This record gives sequence, structure tokens and C-alpha cells, in this order.
Amino acid sequence: MKKNFKLTLEYDGAGYQGWQRQKNGPTVQGALENALARMTGQSLSLIGSGRTDSGVHALGQVANFICETRLGPREFQNGLNSLLQPDIAVVDCAAVPLDFHARFDAKGKLYAYHLLNRPIRVPVGRQYHWHIKPALDIQAMRSALAYIRGRHDFKAFEGAGSPRSHTVRTVVHAELIPCGDRMYRFEIEADGFLRYMVRNIVGTLVELGKGKISPREFNAILGSRNRDRAGPTAPAQGLFLVRVFYEEEGKP
Amino acid sequence: MKKNFKLTLEYDGAGYQGWQRQKNGPTVQGALENALARMTGQSLSLIGSGRTDSGVHALGQVANFICETRLGPREFQNGLNSLLQPDIAVVDCAAVPLDFHARFDAKGKLYAYHLLNRPIRVPVGRQYHWHIKPALDIQAMRSALAYIRGRHDFKAFEGAGSPRSHTVRTVVHAELIPCGDRMYRFEIEADGFLRYMVRNIVGTLVELGKGKISPREFNAILGSRNRDRAGPTAPAQGLFLVRVFYEEEGKP
Repeated sequence: MKKNFKLTLEYDGAGYQGWQRQKNGPTVQGALENALARMTGQSLSLIGSGRTDSGVHALGQVANFICETRLGPREFQNGLNSLLQPDIAVVDCAAVPLDFHARFDAKGKLYAYHLLNRPIRVPVGRQYHWHIKPALDIQAMRSALAYIRGRHDFKAFEGAGSPRSHTVRTVVHAELIPCGDRMYRFEIEADGFLRYMVRNIVGTLVELGKGKISPREFNAILGSRNRDRAGPTAPAQGLFLVRVFYEEEGKP
Repeated sequence: MKKNFKLTLEYDGAGYQGWQRQKNGPTVQGALENALARMTGQSLSLIGSGRTDSGVHALGQVANFICETRLGPREFQNGLNSLLQPDIAVVDCAAVPLDFHARFDAKGKLYAYHLLNRPIRVPVGRQYHWHIKPALDIQAMRSALAYIRGRHDFKAFEGAGSPRSHTVRTVVHAELIPCGDRMYRFEIEADGFLRYMVRNIVGTLVELGKGKISPREFNAILGSRNRDRAGPTAPAQGLFLVRVFYEEEGKP
């Protein structure tokens, strides 16, 4: 009997060349598909809600796979967790209707980016934030967030090399929240994201925080649709895919 | 002119075979002494408040060194931080009286140990806690902490191979504090610690939390002065040297 399983995944992206399976180098999708093959003897395709880039972490990535099996969700969760390395965990596995598709059905995503802003680095946990030494003008960064909330063309923040024909997205939540000693958590939720969009927004916000551009210039960059005007791409290690939203579950 | 410098250090212990310089393998003391040699052209001895074992982290290790130099604390802090790897940081450097001795003058230390207690592992930050799958009886573990508070002979919790003639210590603080989703922080402050003492206490507390021993048996183990009766040594990666106390500074 064909069944469809939805996985909720946490992973530390440091050891992987991103989500998507590729010929060279370990990927999260590859690790999971290899473990599924060992469990089932079948070559199964895992559908992710979207790709995460090399080095990006996840606290709530979602994927699904369809399989002819007598196994249930609990067996898959336990089996995968014993076969996978400690840097990936299946935190939930559920049987879902056969037409559930982790990518097509995703209604939105929440990402978080962690910034540390103090002169001296923090060794413990340095794998999970971007360390910025000069003092940032957090208030100015916050005021610029008003410009990205709502429906906009985010082409200025799209990474080169993988253009989408449609670059308008709706940002429903964007906040810069203090969390610990000079640590800040940038949260952004939208109905979809362009490649490198979060990291390019963060890189540009940091330019603003350093006083290199003003909030109004930030807005002009967004309006320009010109990637060359935006700031550098923030490092992957600070980025977390926190949650993927689907219609059936509502929002917390 | 001879000067004495006091360093306050944070480090991620994963890449080091502990604090103490040795011939084979990188150590925290070795990394710091090598950096000091590059800065000063002198072979200087760094005195730590005590050793941390292989893989143990620090949020507030203290060390001092005496040096004939024109450099000041700020130069040493900045110079060391540029020479050291990102897994060590000099978070403070102060000029102190020539008779200050990081080890002999230490009046007490605060350690923390992080336990994660849920069936599924947590990949992000897994370098910094001990993952225990079965549900622990946290209340029973807390009640046993009353037995270790105060002045006791802790020989039952001393690691083999480096016996001290004097094994009585005074524990002034011992708590098991929830911090996040099924994460617990064990804090213990004492006037001094035996080798592996914190990790042996934690290992025995976890046996108690699993129901293998009762709080009264925990107390009997302490009274026995017999290491063979205590639980296993908890893994190094969950342990943090949080602070070293000296007379001059008072306590927070």
C-alpha cells in the first residue's frame, strides 16, 4: 500500500553542501535518501519544502516521500534517527494524504539569522552566528525593516545564478530581536524566498547598521531591483530555516 | 619593568586536549603561550586557575603571566585575539599586582553542566550538552543535591589516576535549573574541585534520575569515599568552567 510520510527535520548544516542531492559532497537530502534506501531496499525520492544552501541550518525543515511499505511513521522516525549522523534529527514523522507535497503545498517559511555584535568573539557557539565587531545602530536597522514588510519585488536581494521569473514576495513578519549578551535574532517570514534573499537582506542591514547606508537608501536599494546596489551576502552559518507553514495546520 | 597580567578566557574545548601544555596535541595553555611568544619574543609561562580536561569548555577561565614589557593590557588582549584561533577568546586582560597568582589565589569556582533530556537528539548545539534519552526524574535529582551542599569529603567522586591527599571540599551552590526545551543546567560552586568531580557527580545524578539509585543511596555513595560505587563520568562536552572567584573582586 502506498503511503506518504511527512518528515520534520533539524540539522546542523556545517557538514553538508546544502539540502539538495548532488554528485560530489554530502547533502542533507542525500543522507536521508541513503538512510531510506537502507531501511526499505527501495530508491525513494525525498521532496523538500525547498533547498537550504551549503552551511545553512534547519530547526524545522519539512520533506515528504511516498513509499510502498508496511512500516509506519514511528518506525521511519526511529529507523532514520538510528541510521543518520548526529547532525541530522527527524523530530517528527507523520502519515499524510497521498497528495501532500512538501514544496508545492508550502504556504510560507520562517527564517532566523543570528548576529553577534561585540568587539570580542564568542568561541562557544561560534558555528551559529555572524560576528560583527563594530557597534551596530540597531535602531536604524529596525526602522528599515518597515520597508521590507508587505508585498514587494525582492529582485535586489536575489543571488546571482538562479533567477526566478517571478520575484515578488510578501513578507508578513520581520523583526530584529535581542537575545542574550549583544546577540540579535533577525526573524523573517514570507510566502516564499528567493535564493540568498535572507542573507542578502541581512548583509545590507548590517551595512546600514554600520552607517554606510541610511534607512532611506535601504528602501531605494529594494526599489532598484538591482543586486549590485545591495550589501554583501551574510555568511551561511548564521542562518536557520525555523519553520515551514502548510494550510492544514494553521499557525501557532 | 616586570608586569603581571590577568587574562579572562572563553574557549571551546573540542579542539584541545585540555588546558595543560603537553608534548603531543594542542592545548589551550600551549596555544596561548605560543601566541605570547610571538608577541613578546620571550618564552613565558602562563599560570591557569586550574586545568580543564580534554574537551571541557570555559566561559571564564582565568590565567596570569609575568612579563618584562612595555605593552599594556589592551595590546595583549588585541594581539592575542588576532593570533589565536576563533575557538579561544581573551575576553578581558588586566594589569594586576605582581603577587597575584591565578591558581593559589583562587577562592572558588563555578562550573555548569548541560543535560538534554528528550527522546530525539538536538543537532544544533549538540557539541555543548549530554543527550539523555530516557525521561529523568528531575525532582529526585534535585533532592539529592542537598547531600552535596556544604563541607564533605568528595573522594567518591574523584577520578582515578590523580589522587589528592586532601579530598574535603565545600560546595556553596548546587542547583539543577531548567533552561529551554527539556534542557537542564547543573550548576555547582565550591572552594575547589577534585579531578572529574563535576562529571562524576553528574554521571551519578543521572543514574539517580533514571531510577537506578535513590537519593539516599546517592548520599551513601558520597559517604563511602569509594569511586567504584559512584556512576560513570559524564562526557566532557557538557561541562563549562563558568567563573573563577578571587578575593579582591567580591562576588556578583
